[in-house]
Amino acid sequence: MKKYVAEFFGTFWLVLGGCGSAVLAANFGGEGNPLGLGFLGVSLAFGLTVLTMAYAVGHISGGHFNPAVSFGLFAGKRFSGSDLLPYVVAQVLGAIAAGAVILIIASGNGALDLSGPTPLATNGYGTHSPGGYGLLSALVTEIVMTFMFLLIIMGATDRLAPAGFGPVAIGLALTLIHLISIPVTNTSVNPARSTGVALFCGNGEIIAQLWLFWVAPIIGGILGGWVYATFFETAQDVRPLEPIEPAMKQ
Amino acid sequence: MKKYVAEFFGTFWLVLGGCGSAVLAANFGGEGNPLGLGFLGVSLAFGLTVLTMAYAVGHISGGHFNPAVSFGLFAGKRFSGSDLLPYVVAQVLGAIAAGAVILIIASGNGALDLSGPTPLATNGYGTHSPGGYGLLSALVTEIVMTFMFLLIIMGATDRLAPAGFGPVAIGLALTLIHLISIPVTNTSVNPARSTGVALFCGNGEIIAQLWLFWVAPIIGGILGGWVYATFFETAQDVRPLEPIEPAMKQ
Amino acid sequence: MKKYVAEFFGTFWLVLGGCGSAVLAANFGGEGNPLGLGFLGVSLAFGLTVLTMAYAVGHISGGHFNPAVSFGLFAGKRFSGSDLLPYVVAQVLGAIAAGAVILIIASGNGALDLSGPTPLATNGYGTHSPGGYGLLSALVTEIVMTFMFLLIIMGATDRLAPAGFGPVAIGLALTLIHLISIPVTNTSVNPARSTGVALFCGNGEIIAQLWLFWVAPIIGGILGGWVYATFFETAQDVRPLEPIEPAMKQ
Amino acid sequence: MKKYVAEFFGTFWLVLGGCGSAVLAANFGGEGNPLGLGFLGVSLAFGLTVLTMAYAVGHISGGHFNPAVSFGLFAGKRFSGSDLLPYVVAQVLGAIAAGAVILIIASGNGALDLSGPTPLATNGYGTHSPGGYGLLSALVTEIVMTFMFLLIIMGATDRLAPAGFGPVAIGLALTLIHLISIPVTNTSVNPARSTGVALFCGNGEIIAQLWLFWVAPIIGGILGGWVYATFFETAQDVRPLEPIEPAMKQ
Repeated sequence: MKKYVAEFFGTFWLVLGGCGSAVLAANFGGEGNPLGLGFLGVSLAFGLTVLTMAYAVGHISGGHFNPAVSFGLFAGKRFSGSDLLPYVVAQVLGAIAAGAVILIIASGNGALDLSGPTPLATNGYGTHSPGGYGLLSALVTEIVMTFMFLLIIMGATDRLAPAGFGPVAIGLALTLIHLISIPVTNTSVNPARSTGVALFCGNGEIIAQLWLFWVAPIIGGILGGWVYATFFETAQDVRPLEPIEPAMKQ
Repeated sequence: MKKYVAEFFGTFWLVLGGCGSAVLAANFGGEGNPLGLGFLGVSLAFGLTVLTMAYAVGHISGGHFNPAVSFGLFAGKRFSGSDLLPYVVAQVLGAIAAGAVILIIASGNGALDLSGPTPLATNGYGTHSPGGYGLLSALVTEIVMTFMFLLIIMGATDRLAPAGFGPVAIGLALTLIHLISIPVTNTSVNPARSTGVALFCGNGEIIAQLWLFWVAPIIGGILGGWVYATFFETAQDVRPLEPIEPAMKQ
Repeated sequence: MKKYVAEFFGTFWLVLGGCGSAVLAANFGGEGNPLGLGFLGVSLAFGLTVLTMAYAVGHISGGHFNPAVSFGLFAGKRFSGSDLLPYVVAQVLGAIAAGAVILIIASGNGALDLSGPTPLATNGYGTHSPGGYGLLSALVTEIVMTFMFLLIIMGATDRLAPAGFGPVAIGLALTLIHLISIPVTNTSVNPARSTGVALFCGNGEIIAQLWLFWVAPIIGGILGGWVYATFFETAQDVRPLEPIEPAMKQ
Repeated sequence: MKKYVAEFFGTFWLVLGGCGSAVLAANFGGEGNPLGLGFLGVSLAFGLTVLTMAYAVGHISGGHFNPAVSFGLFAGKRFSGSDLLPYVVAQVLGAIAAGAVILIIASGNGALDLSGPTPLATNGYGTHSPGGYGLLSALVTEIVMTFMFLLIIMGATDRLAPAGFGPVAIGLALTLIHLISIPVTNTSVNPARSTGVALFCGNGEIIAQLWLFWVAPIIGGILGGWVYATFFETAQDVRPLEPIEPAMKQ
């Protein structure tokens, strides 16, 4: 049970930190104001949510915080299929709780505006892409980014990789993915993150695009987990996982 | 005794580094000047004060540098009640010393202006919130942020977490918290930090709001410490603490 | 065989992350828009590609992702000459694959402009230097930067250096190199990176400058590997390498 | 002998990376251009020079790269007096070599301007302070910053601190120090860094202010080393040092 609670809080933090910083601080004061975080600050925020919570509860749940990661680790034989559904449910609930908290906080200065292309830092393509990128760019981006994300997750938690550094590599990989792809889809690679804010954005068009942010990250994640397990891992490498660094503390 | 001195210097550094960078460099040259740090640079500065001093004196005092952390670790059974008062006193004295040094340095170009909404990087809500956020947003923000901060501190220093990485996770958690919440309250999560600069800002209204930055962080901190200890920690995990990484060097 | 696949994916990620973030996000919205990454965000992206993939596949291929690194490690007696050619081929193929993916994604909003001085984040000097720096500045910069890069790579993976931190030091060294030298040559220090995007930029002048970004990084890399091996390494330090941290996990 | 060469290259890298990024990239394109690094990017560059070279050659020379650090470690009984002079000489020579390389590279676009208040990223006060801060602010800033720098260096390399993380804590401490104090003195805390660029800036007034950037950092450094050794260290902590992490690899 406590591993589901850990996934709830981890995904809550991912969405509150990543989307919250985007909503509250990315463009503070508008054009010409140099105080706002910009895409760089938001990218750092997303990555640090994973880095921090992976150190905090990685030893409890493995620190997925993302359905595409759970699917990918299952495809890579690092995660048991019987936990897949409860993990995804806990992740989505955590993301929704974060969406609600962002809405409460952001409503507190009377200036919240949900009419833009990406209200509450939602993901989208076409008119709901920050840079106006179409469906094909969005699909390629989300699949390739999640593919590489899982390759890094599988590799950095391999028993041959340096122990203890997994959360640094994985968190900063998420930062890097955002540095590249915020202009294209506002960056998802995480169906729970997309869902948690879409539900509160009050825009049916954005909800109608949600399918892509379930399908593409899960395809990319499964491919990444499978490629690593098939091409890079030899039999004696395989380990049961769950806690991110099981061999770490002896 | 030396652990109190360590808490004094650690909190001194937290306030000097975080608030000092905000006062001196956040908005350097004003609007249109791209040299200033913005909220991103200030967030990094706050986090790095904790990261650096936790490596420097974490083995001496545990590296709290924050009354809400001391209360939270006490609620999480990682910190003895008899040290609570002297720790908080040392932290507040360190913060006040930093406030004085910031005032001395910042007065040195004849352009220090204490008339803005957040002079000397003070915390506040309503007219003293950087983005004009009200009391409810401020309360929710400070409680939730400190709650998550303690969850991360408890988890990242758990004996099952990777040894040695605590200061990285905890310092960067503070950076992340600032990335999210500077627009709301200028980010406290630390009553000593709020007090140290409020005393020198020369604005009674800001001092009248100080209560929130004692009450909310301590509530959030106690909840976070208690939730981790209750839901995530099993009996054999518990360890005496004090030095952040006691098992680390064998 | 799997080490060549690892070098392919690593160099793919280096070019996709570094050049992709530059093309898609560095100057988002144009002048006056504070959301773009600037040189700082692009520098961070380049470094994080190496940091993340070195943790992910460093134990498989050593994590070079760069012909100049392979040549330098060969000169430093850390890498066998028989692998030099296949490594360089895999790296260049990975870089070309990344160039193609960037072109596909970036074409998706109908606004891709290849007429600037550095289309697709290509490297160059004179009219193809971001800051208009000439041939001598470009040569000195690329040689000195790659020289220092190899010194750091050799030293940080020395058996006397702290185990496990190699990818942090090496990745952040690449970030630092970009912080210094993007204005001069758009920063190469990596012939594969230069080649992968030059092939798709549609500008013959840029392809005609490619020679410098093969010659200078390889000269600098060989000098750096040789200087470390000659002046800093004593006989008993030498180790076979391949996996970045071979002694790490016992 | 090889430790002096290591100090030469380390200080060369510190000045080339820190001052070089400031000269070439801090204000790229001038006001209104969002690509420049700003103070945040320059602060990161300074810190990363130390982080990267401390991992690369810390096991050879201890990784001082700064006369104030050598004096401070001597005061803290971590560094032998007989090496003090050759270390300082090697550091100053490395800094001068870097100043020359910056001048060569920066001269390559015909737009180098040495008429500003801080040409070649020199340090200064009064009219040579970036924010116009006077002598008192400069003295307090340089003494306090170097004092805290040495406290962190002594603590993070204490045998009770987590092994291997010293270069992370120390490098990021230098980043933090720059985040706070660039507006005041352009940040020195390092007499070699100040000297290496002052010699090439062609401004007698700046050379006439150099005394402060020898006196204040060395006073602060000696105080910091002495305070740590006296108040925080007990007899059995003391270790011979030289290589930053001597106990690390057993």
